[in-house]
Amino acid sequence: METNQCNTPVNLAPPSPSRVGLESNPQGTIVNVGGTKIGGTDIVIIAGPCAVESWEQLFETAMAVKSSGAKILRGGAYKPRSSPYSFQGLGEEGLKLLATIHKQTGLPLVTEVMDTRQIEMVASYADMLQIGSRNMQNFPLLKEAGMCRKPVLLKRGMMSTIEEFLLAAEYILNQGNDQVILCERGIRTFETSTRNTLDLSAVPMLKSLTHLPVIVDPSHGTGLRWMVPSMSKAAVAVGADGLIIEVHYNPDQALCDGHQSLSLDEFDRLMTDLKKISHAIGRDIYL
Amino acid sequence: METNQCNTPVNLAPPSPSRVGLESNPQGTIVNVGGTKIGGTDIVIIAGPCAVESWEQLFETAMAVKSSGAKILRGGAYKPRSSPYSFQGLGEEGLKLLATIHKQTGLPLVTEVMDTRQIEMVASYADMLQIGSRNMQNFPLLKEAGMCRKPVLLKRGMMSTIEEFLLAAEYILNQGNDQVILCERGIRTFETSTRNTLDLSAVPMLKSLTHLPVIVDPSHGTGLRWMVPSMSKAAVAVGADGLIIEVHYNPDQALCDGHQSLSLDEFDRLMTDLKKISHAIGRDIYL
Amino acid sequence: METNQCNTPVNLAPPSPSRVGLESNPQGTIVNVGGTKIGGTDIVIIAGPCAVESWEQLFETAMAVKSSGAKILRGGAYKPRSSPYSFQGLGEEGLKLLATIHKQTGLPLVTEVMDTRQIEMVASYADMLQIGSRNMQNFPLLKEAGMCRKPVLLKRGMMSTIEEFLLAAEYILNQGNDQVILCERGIRTFETSTRNTLDLSAVPMLKSLTHLPVIVDPSHGTGLRWMVPSMSKAAVAVGADGLIIEVHYNPDQALCDGHQSLSLDEFDRLMTDLKKISHAIGRDIYL
Amino acid sequence: METNQCNTPVNLAPPSPSRVGLESNPQGTIVNVGGTKIGGTDIVIIAGPCAVESWEQLFETAMAVKSSGAKILRGGAYKPRSSPYSFQGLGEEGLKLLATIHKQTGLPLVTEVMDTRQIEMVASYADMLQIGSRNMQNFPLLKEAGMCRKPVLLKRGMMSTIEEFLLAAEYILNQGNDQVILCERGIRTFETSTRNTLDLSAVPMLKSLTHLPVIVDPSHGTGLRWMVPSMSKAAVAVGADGLIIEVHYNPDQALCDGHQSLSLDEFDRLMTDLKKISHAIGRDIYL
Repeated sequence: METNQCNTPVNLAPPSPSRVGLESNPQGTIVNVGGTKIGGTDIVIIAGPCAVESWEQLFETAMAVKSSGAKILRGGAYKPRSSPYSFQGLGEEGLKLLATIHKQTGLPLVTEVMDTRQIEMVASYADMLQIGSRNMQNFPLLKEAGMCRKPVLLKRGMMSTIEEFLLAAEYILNQGNDQVILCERGIRTFETSTRNTLDLSAVPMLKSLTHLPVIVDPSHGTGLRWMVPSMSKAAVAVGADGLIIEVHYNPDQALCDGHQSLSLDEFDRLMTDLKKISHAIGRDIYL
Repeated sequence: METNQCNTPVNLAPPSPSRVGLESNPQGTIVNVGGTKIGGTDIVIIAGPCAVESWEQLFETAMAVKSSGAKILRGGAYKPRSSPYSFQGLGEEGLKLLATIHKQTGLPLVTEVMDTRQIEMVASYADMLQIGSRNMQNFPLLKEAGMCRKPVLLKRGMMSTIEEFLLAAEYILNQGNDQVILCERGIRTFETSTRNTLDLSAVPMLKSLTHLPVIVDPSHGTGLRWMVPSMSKAAVAVGADGLIIEVHYNPDQALCDGHQSLSLDEFDRLMTDLKKISHAIGRDIYL
Repeated sequence: METNQCNTPVNLAPPSPSRVGLESNPQGTIVNVGGTKIGGTDIVIIAGPCAVESWEQLFETAMAVKSSGAKILRGGAYKPRSSPYSFQGLGEEGLKLLATIHKQTGLPLVTEVMDTRQIEMVASYADMLQIGSRNMQNFPLLKEAGMCRKPVLLKRGMMSTIEEFLLAAEYILNQGNDQVILCERGIRTFETSTRNTLDLSAVPMLKSLTHLPVIVDPSHGTGLRWMVPSMSKAAVAVGADGLIIEVHYNPDQALCDGHQSLSLDEFDRLMTDLKKISHAIGRDIYL
Repeated sequence: METNQCNTPVNLAPPSPSRVGLESNPQGTIVNVGGTKIGGTDIVIIAGPCAVESWEQLFETAMAVKSSGAKILRGGAYKPRSSPYSFQGLGEEGLKLLATIHKQTGLPLVTEVMDTRQIEMVASYADMLQIGSRNMQNFPLLKEAGMCRKPVLLKRGMMSTIEEFLLAAEYILNQGNDQVILCERGIRTFETSTRNTLDLSAVPMLKSLTHLPVIVDPSHGTGLRWMVPSMSKAAVAVGADGLIIEVHYNPDQALCDGHQSLSLDEFDRLMTDLKKISHAIGRDIYL
């Protein structure tokens, strides 16, 4: 049986070890997101709403998650939606709201970028650029993010192998930017009771292969609010360097992904539980 | 677009709620395996070799895992192997060795049954019958196991949905046997870096739907010895009622699955870590 | 990264080439099902209801499909159903009905066997034993079918790779029975608009690897009556040696799988189209 | 069990029926690619190399495939490659070579666009823009392609459901561009013997849901040169409106995907076979 391998490139020589390979930086890379460090002993929690909707929504959510122990604020201004008729995000107006909240709370910001033409503008507001699951193999976007000197949160494609995930990160590092965080966010399988199948084995696998920090997104990984706490605990136990969790001050009114967003109280209780798990494995939640 | 649903049965009325449904026993079923109880607050660890090979192998492994805190011994006498040329197990000779070890160590036994014709004999040696992943929808075997008054460890099919898993258990309960433990052991996905993708979200999902205890098999779920500890910790953190772990006194010489078996020392260290995690979630390891 | 390979068997030597390997019989194996030959230039159509329900149902369907050009009658007496509350088949009563119809129409019979204890009885009625998708890795059943001197129709597991499929067939051939037909019947993927994803590339792949005949089941492969004709044409065009198609004299009243069963008229029209396709590739429908 | 549905958009109302829905144009849309019409009774074959490499390579391949009956030339100038160290294409130099060949052969051109910033330039050379599998949910790219008045060849994402595929096309049509061709190119499954699993059932499924033409890419769908002919025949038999096939004048020297490219002779023989199949289903190859 013939195998399927694309031909070896003729005019390009990959570095050995690859730039993402563990051998390139055996002690592990620390990514600095506006002063918050990810990749060390402490575990970092990123929280916030799926989409930026209003100043009030963002401010109340940001203040609450900060008080509970989150160190970075998430919130989407440009939203990749399967349907053109779903809410597409507030665009630059959303970025401006994020910047206001940053000033008011001091929380560093991560927000998604979907188009090479947006990178410069988004980078002028954000402390970290997120490249979403659907764009994991958007190679021009990866290259531009590599040229930009901002940290990048790269989410695993929902049907991408670990090898492809690392090669996607290699596109960014190959442009001279090693401030990359990898995020497992669930893969697509035959199972339909959860939105995706959160592949927690990806965490130890990635940690054995690369020096980059690895975090987990239990919100997209399950698509179910009630399941986020238990999968968050498992993600900490398995060795993740952080979590990114959707939190909304009023999940039932959210314009996007409310069914998988924690309320402020649920998030606060979860943080208490996560501290216990992190202590049990000899780590701490970054405070 | 038409959907695909098999016709409603015409001559059979399912009970409402189903026998496996949480509503049938909201406080949760406790399964008693030769005196060891699974399904309560305490977490039970099942350990032992993939296959029974010899008295010495089984005795040394059993004594060690018992000393580390395992409460039930696993070991296969009949092995389902993809190739007819792989080691198929020792058969009844293996069962007799298991019975000897049971007398010498006091550990209850779980071993796999693959054929309706074997059930009576296997049940005469074992404290719990295992129905493996490949037989999850072997309906005659499920019915016979239901008629037998021994506990049943039912492993999820590697490409079975949660719904199919519960319906398979329903076949057993429908024969009057509610002593069933469900085991998540990894599903088949596109990812090839691990042997299977261990679907830890199945644990909270199952716990929300059924009163039956749920355990996890991190050995088959990953296929990688070095990954078993981290996934075991995650399984405890996510809420599993127990684990079933492959341990061999000499993994490199194992006749089956040595690459995913822990050594005696590795298992002992893992038990120490699992106790910490279980305490962090307010449970304990059954001792 | 370590790979996941089960250990090489220590006490068994596989034949080289394997018994299913093309090199073992480069001209291809012809399977003789009660006088109908599968595996030669002519394409054989197997048709009939999902489940045997009554003499009238079976007789009317059998006479019609025979008249349209089907050469073998299918019909299940033992049905593997996900739920214990779905119609489970008529059992031996169904086999007796099949035998009656065989006498009245002359059509050879294929019917499913699910339990090692049933093989002898089923073989006393049937011209070919079917081992269904859920039992592809029911190794005791494969061995018993190998010891029985009847042809075996082995369906690919919905979760099984081509390699596992061939190894399952090897279990049968290894018992001295080379009268095995392989059947692609759809695999499980993330796509939900069809019941399964019919993997037609399995046909040329299998033909390149084994001497056994390969047929296709477009009924289970799609789960949609209206899609059966187009996928049947594709299956003939891709090189299948036959098809097995669910046909019912009154699909809307079928006790099982009516939504994917062709009516008698639909089947008759399809046969006309299949003849044209078979001529276009230099083959013929066996008449 | 809660289900996972993103919230209904609050500020956008989808048209009913959707713009891609069959009801919007029941007689079917004809897409005009530089004078070649796709979507009518005739089947259109698109052929050419994976990547543009040189004038000689392109000219010899183009002349040969035209002579065999291909009506549109494919060739990539911008190549999406998993590794940054693989050949990335000749860029605009490649587009200029394509334009030269277009003048010399009269064949309309289809070539891939990966970045919103490239669309205007690529559209100035090409008769049809290809949006590749990895960009099927690159929503800014879809919107830009919709604003551009060139036909678009949209390939199904390797991880995308039929529903998501249609919604991606809706992004293009929603900008006022209905000149869209859908292309099934294989999905990712657990099976590894082929590069992807070509889902031919997608063809009748899509034809039942949308008025847009549907074509098949058997080269990426299988990743195996020897399997392309049989799957091409199946694709025509199942009802595809066209095929896009990788052909190279010297496959063993190709810089990209040579292992899945047909030689000029192989392509010529295939065209003869495809004509027979198309006649058998009452269609013809466009000449």
